[in-house]
Amino acid sequence: MAGGGEDAAAARNKMVVLKRHVTGFPTEEDVEVVVGTVRLQVPAGSTSAVLVKNLYLSCDPWMRGRMSKHDEGVTVPAPDFVVGQTLVNFGVGKVIDSTHPEFKAGDLVWGMSGWEEYTLVSQPESLFKINHTELPLSYYTGVLGMPGLTVYAGFMEVGRPKRGDFVFVSAASGAVGQVAGQLAKIAGCYVVGSAGSDEKVDLLKTKFGFDDAFNYKSEVDLAAALKRCLPDGIDIYFDNVGGATLDAALLHMRHGGRVVVCGMISQYNLEEPDGVRNLFCIIPKAVRVEGFNVGGYLQMYSRFEEQMSGYIKEGKVVVVEDVVEGIESAPAALVGLFSGRNVGKQLVALPRG
Amino acid sequence: MAGGGEDAAAARNKMVVLKRHVTGFPTEEDVEVVVGTVRLQVPAGSTSAVLVKNLYLSCDPWMRGRMSKHDEGVTVPAPDFVVGQTLVNFGVGKVIDSTHPEFKAGDLVWGMSGWEEYTLVSQPESLFKINHTELPLSYYTGVLGMPGLTVYAGFMEVGRPKRGDFVFVSAASGAVGQVAGQLAKIAGCYVVGSAGSDEKVDLLKTKFGFDDAFNYKSEVDLAAALKRCLPDGIDIYFDNVGGATLDAALLHMRHGGRVVVCGMISQYNLEEPDGVRNLFCIIPKAVRVEGFNVGGYLQMYSRFEEQMSGYIKEGKVVVVEDVVEGIESAPAALVGLFSGRNVGKQLVALPRG
Repeated sequence: MAGGGEDAAAARNKMVVLKRHVTGFPTEEDVEVVVGTVRLQVPAGSTSAVLVKNLYLSCDPWMRGRMSKHDEGVTVPAPDFVVGQTLVNFGVGKVIDSTHPEFKAGDLVWGMSGWEEYTLVSQPESLFKINHTELPLSYYTGVLGMPGLTVYAGFMEVGRPKRGDFVFVSAASGAVGQVAGQLAKIAGCYVVGSAGSDEKVDLLKTKFGFDDAFNYKSEVDLAAALKRCLPDGIDIYFDNVGGATLDAALLHMRHGGRVVVCGMISQYNLEEPDGVRNLFCIIPKAVRVEGFNVGGYLQMYSRFEEQMSGYIKEGKVVVVEDVVEGIESAPAALVGLFSGRNVGKQLVALPRG
Repeated sequence: MAGGGEDAAAARNKMVVLKRHVTGFPTEEDVEVVVGTVRLQVPAGSTSAVLVKNLYLSCDPWMRGRMSKHDEGVTVPAPDFVVGQTLVNFGVGKVIDSTHPEFKAGDLVWGMSGWEEYTLVSQPESLFKINHTELPLSYYTGVLGMPGLTVYAGFMEVGRPKRGDFVFVSAASGAVGQVAGQLAKIAGCYVVGSAGSDEKVDLLKTKFGFDDAFNYKSEVDLAAALKRCLPDGIDIYFDNVGGATLDAALLHMRHGGRVVVCGMISQYNLEEPDGVRNLFCIIPKAVRVEGFNVGGYLQMYSRFEEQMSGYIKEGKVVVVEDVVEGIESAPAALVGLFSGRNVGKQLVALPRG
């Protein structure tokens, strides 16, 4: 068993820490990269800790919520980040040292870690061993990680697709959207996506196999765009954006339709959320609007990993990533999510040496 | 077989007809009572029509939608009423003449009929025979009719209550709300209701067995009222009103909670619906918001009628009705729904002689 040596080497540890709580759109100045040091061993006395060298940091919209200061009692998916402390999110890494029986030095893992070069993980139940090392490791920040599992659970378990269903996916070229669209195609659905640039719309149609797509920024009337692309209405709307797009989709749902509410990125930076005015449509059309988060579905990870890695190997699911290099690039990559600057899954690659 | 006689008696037939399509709150001047005549036999040549003498007309909020003129292509639960034609809704009546094999003169029925003294029902599939004539016939406009079946389907099938669940019902003393609260108590839930007067709040607690209740008109902060009455949150919100009450309830749902969206009476008279701002809460708390209407559940009517009539006989479900007499009183009774003037199920009794 490793851990606890007195003479462990120390290493530089660059970290992205929160400089101030955020109101409105986040900026690069809300965080800063600071340099610390880390001992390259699990501290003496720890019996179930894992020291991870981070290889890929995942940039995900849900981090925005944790950058705000919430009033006590407000429901949040996870506690607020603390000013002066390192940001936390999913990532991919390599085990350097471990006192946990399930992990040993050299293991490749994904799970919750810090936005830093090395993280001492004291709750290794949030780490998963990477079984398919023949695939790009970075996929475990996306299609094979939290976003992929989110779609798998949300689309299959909450959306319950049937062959021939008309599916609409917003933020469709992003980490979640691109997987949602491709799983919908595998399920035999007709799939339309929306995205925020012509380049992304093109990706949807040519790379990800969407049947149709539109650039929501160049549409005057979102409801009309939906009616044009889905004249018979929507059976499943996989919602990543909320706001005006959700409102337009509600008008256009078919009887018995499902709105799978995965995220509302259009709302995360608003002082007051937009009002959704068309919710009444769910009564005559018996529509189910269901929120979900990946937390409830971690137990299905193994099944998911096997199925999704199979799809990738068969070419049924393809991946587009937007990779920046080095932890100094992380703040801009995170901030860019909220203007849609990323094309595909946004992640940060750290040196592997 | 009856029907078709040349020498059938004619009778006076007073009818409530739409005078003009409605914008905003309906008024008594939007409809008028006109006097016609009716032959007291099914016309010659009809092979499946039923002539009904109406005994009770049901006043239900959903009629408001049909009083508007909707643009083509807008989803509505039922077609707009036509100016100059009789309003249509559920009612209770007695068969006078029938050429339909399942109905004969003297049968007591409930179902879709006109707001008039006699209705020739040409689609008798929307009529149900009344099996429990030992109970007040008027109950078939409420607890044993469409509102009762609505609750039964919505609360049991969509809400899926578990013993110990915390349940909130809005418009709780109305036709639907009073049944929802009592079914929730039978299911072993803790039940809180909101209503629009102290008299109604008193009814909820003393007559219908709600555990707690509040007058939404005298609360400054609906979210605070919910927190006071349901400090541990809401598992099932049975929504009859939409708008601000729905928004407050969304803030206060428990993980895995269900919002059963049955109606949105607060919204029916607005030019533009209120925006619901707290929908994002459904993501971290994995809340299901499901709209439904009774149309999908008519096949469970027999099972429902047996169960509900049993509850009534055992005293487990009690009924409060607000009955006005005579068709001339119908317009005011209908309009009064939207200011909450009614206490309990609003209906109109017509002469039985």
